[in-house]
Amino acid sequence: LVPLSFAWSGDHVIIASETSAITTRNIVASERARLGLGQTRDVVMIDVVLVQNVSVREAPHAIAERYAEQADWDPRSSPGYAYLILLPERIQAWREVSEIPGRTLMRDGAWLV
Amino acid sequence: LVPLSFAWSGDHVIIASETSAITTRNIVASERARLGLGQTRDVVMIDVVLVQNVSVREAPHAIAERYAEQADWDPRSSPGYAYLILLPERIQAWREVSEIPGRTLMRDGAWLV
Repeated sequence: LVPLSFAWSGDHVIIASETSAITTRNIVASERARLGLGQTRDVVMIDVVLVQNVSVREAPHAIAERYAEQADWDPRSSPGYAYLILLPERIQAWREVSEIPGRTLMRDGAWLV
Repeated sequence: LVPLSFAWSGDHVIIASETSAITTRNIVASERARLGLGQTRDVVMIDVVLVQNVSVREAPHAIAERYAEQADWDPRSSPGYAYLILLPERIQAWREVSEIPGRTLMRDGAWLV
């Protein structure tokens, strides 16, 4: 469990993390992660699969620009960082108990809403 | 990674979770957990050890009352729930990169601030 900035490409979540960090190594090894956004009473949980792991030096310009714009931080000046491109498979969102029955918004990569 | 309500006793974090839930089973098995509070740019991370796992029916009155008051939800009407009493060992808090050097507020259970 670590706090990270992220960007959203429309299809993928993009995070940037040091290649040597435990977080990066765990995601690269398992090819899976769970992301949590929002607050105690307005929760978003996203189960993702890793689709690409690319160093900041070798990343496509569009990915780097998107990340810098949305995350308000540009890791291209930090050697040793990589972008992890993550594809959502399941998205759940709810405020409180009353919204738990309808909390799944995406399943197996397909939007339900 | 799951979203949970919690209460703070002054020394311990109290969460309530179904005894059969993966979260509960993982914490009971490992006797450890990492809690994340706050938001992307105002983070609190607490590494805790499990000190007590008590069903809602057998819990001391003071714990149940504290939890109900702070979490704004009372699991005593939900059979199968347990309180997990968690002792912080390490607490880290920071807003952005500038506060990372001083982010550790508790180490080995002792406040540094």
